[in-house]
Amino acid sequence: MKTISILGSTGSIGCNTLKVIEHLGDYRVVALAAGHNMKKLAEQTAKFSPDLVSVSSDECADILRDELRSLNTTPPTIDVGEKGLVEVAVHPLAKTVVSATVGAVGFVPTLRAIEAGKRIALANKETLVIAGELMTKAAEKSGAEILPVDSEHNAIHQCLRGESRSEVKRLILTASGGPFRSKSKEEIDSATREEALNHPNWKMGDKITIDSATLMNKGLEVIEARWLFGFDADQVSVIIHPQSVVHSMVELVDGSVIAQMGVTDMKHAIQYALTYPERKENCLPPLDLGKLGQLNFEEPDTDRFPCLALAYEALRAGGTMPAVLNAANEVAVKAFLDGTIRLSDIPRINNRVMRSHVARPAATIENILTADHEARAAASALLPATVTSAGI
Amino acid sequence: MKTISILGSTGSIGCNTLKVIEHLGDYRVVALAAGHNMKKLAEQTAKFSPDLVSVSSDECADILRDELRSLNTTPPTIDVGEKGLVEVAVHPLAKTVVSATVGAVGFVPTLRAIEAGKRIALANKETLVIAGELMTKAAEKSGAEILPVDSEHNAIHQCLRGESRSEVKRLILTASGGPFRSKSKEEIDSATREEALNHPNWKMGDKITIDSATLMNKGLEVIEARWLFGFDADQVSVIIHPQSVVHSMVELVDGSVIAQMGVTDMKHAIQYALTYPERKENCLPPLDLGKLGQLNFEEPDTDRFPCLALAYEALRAGGTMPAVLNAANEVAVKAFLDGTIRLSDIPRINNRVMRSHVARPAATIENILTADHEARAAASALLPATVTSAGI
Repeated sequence: MKTISILGSTGSIGCNTLKVIEHLGDYRVVALAAGHNMKKLAEQTAKFSPDLVSVSSDECADILRDELRSLNTTPPTIDVGEKGLVEVAVHPLAKTVVSATVGAVGFVPTLRAIEAGKRIALANKETLVIAGELMTKAAEKSGAEILPVDSEHNAIHQCLRGESRSEVKRLILTASGGPFRSKSKEEIDSATREEALNHPNWKMGDKITIDSATLMNKGLEVIEARWLFGFDADQVSVIIHPQSVVHSMVELVDGSVIAQMGVTDMKHAIQYALTYPERKENCLPPLDLGKLGQLNFEEPDTDRFPCLALAYEALRAGGTMPAVLNAANEVAVKAFLDGTIRLSDIPRINNRVMRSHVARPAATIENILTADHEARAAASALLPATVTSAGI
Repeated sequence: MKTISILGSTGSIGCNTLKVIEHLGDYRVVALAAGHNMKKLAEQTAKFSPDLVSVSSDECADILRDELRSLNTTPPTIDVGEKGLVEVAVHPLAKTVVSATVGAVGFVPTLRAIEAGKRIALANKETLVIAGELMTKAAEKSGAEILPVDSEHNAIHQCLRGESRSEVKRLILTASGGPFRSKSKEEIDSATREEALNHPNWKMGDKITIDSATLMNKGLEVIEARWLFGFDADQVSVIIHPQSVVHSMVELVDGSVIAQMGVTDMKHAIQYALTYPERKENCLPPLDLGKLGQLNFEEPDTDRFPCLALAYEALRAGGTMPAVLNAANEVAVKAFLDGTIRLSDIPRINNRVMRSHVARPAATIENILTADHEARAAASALLPATVTSAGI
């Protein structure tokens, strides 16, 4: 029986992880952490009987207890806040920790899980974006394995099996291009929230869906790839591939390109991260290339999608700069989702916050969190006044 | 310094192998065998100074001596016929043997090289088609490694690196579809020699180009894959992919599809077979997916291309049946190239010869060669009278 904790169990990755676990059958869920969706967390608790759950606040804990009562379920231990997240992350019985919270909140708990030598199924890319050096050094020290759940990095992990890293020329991340791939600058500028949330291929959370629409997501993935696989910015490239069937590729020194393909369902990557180095039959329909008929590829356009270029810039600047870009972007995306800025304001805010920051070493949590907070403040200051006062 | 012998040095694979060797730089050519092109063999001999060359007849040997004299080159030892081919194949100094003769003539020499424990870079697919069981058993016994040079099998070899064979669901061979992919049955029936030789993607020898036009080549590759990788007929499938950029794929039990892509130049696969398990920089332009823009896939149509279905049938019948199909096909292709039958007569002849044969065990060379000769006779008897008397 394998044991698992999930940070962010009620989100898209969390729910899919539980589906994969049900399919695989030989897992015990030891601990769950969720932010606000207490109804779903209660259902998950009733079904999977974790020893520990963690929620974002005492109010949420009370709601969870009520929900569990209505499901006739005895509450497990309930922890709260970052301390609770960390308890879930380092639960002594959990061999695998799925890190699937959204945004920077997953950073410290994931680091603690790495330090505790867990296998990390990492869906929270912000963690590596803001603290890649710290995370990978900690993993080296503790022997923790980090298995990416992002379909692109998961694909690259698969393509690298059996390859020698000195024979890798570059990693090629595919990007769907999002809902605005073929739109003009003007159309992107005036895009509505609903248009931006309408991702052509993947059903994901709101934050990552907006990041996909601006290509910021791909930019963050470039930074993530750098840390996951140890290649520098020049060895990580991006190609637009609207069908998202080729999840990513690796080019080798002999010109060979190894690609991983599959259906567009996150359960594939989640299962791979859980069962690696083994592969198990999954519950998804097979890829049918004959029926698909066509795969397209084009170079990304950093003029219409400046967030991608900003990510490369942040990666090359190094130190705290990726954390600053990530923090500014989180603030900007929330403001867009709240309806207070336009989509094209997101790269504008990210750019201005990066310009106002001088990169510092990112070797300690404190340095990173300070930069993160500074960037959030700087980004918030750029938002329309009413929003700033609403507490972003 | 690595050492190499080449069976079929003046053909397409042979010439490309010598180009790859020049690029790699640390190889010594120990022995060369060629059939009829003595001018080219003389040039190769002058350039690479092999210890031994072998040619098809005493007349060819005389011509070669003349050619070498005109190049002021002292002739090396010159052997003749199948004995000569075997001498090249088992040359004690050669660690690697490139088996690149066309058709069944490569069978015995390649088997001898396998028995001698050489690394075999195998471009002669007929060898495995007619005697897969014998070849793979011999390789198991001697420890000889067989590295496929066919781009499809080479791709599958690459896709299987780092994978466990029990986790492979199926191999997916790509087929360009040849020049008649979108043509009607009637158009295929009336195709000229020139139309059939006009392959859209690959520059290859005449025999394999015709086989590509009928999809017989893909059928032979299905049989080859069965023996190279040890999967049965149901685990080898074919998909039409006109651009030939995806050289082939492997589907794993978890639904993941690993593909190998590259430019359409045989030097890639040849170099891989020589340098494996290492990869070296090659002399080819990189694959540019953005510029290509589009990859297409469709299911093969065995109604218009019956040779593909015949190959599956032969593989399932087992024993000597694949050798019979191969022999009938060699006779039929030669007759088509000689202008005496139509393209659609090739599957017709193959089919009739298979119907007249009852599969026998293919465990000895004698059994295989007897079946091969019977099939050649049966196929020749089906050709128009003038051609039969011309000695096919």
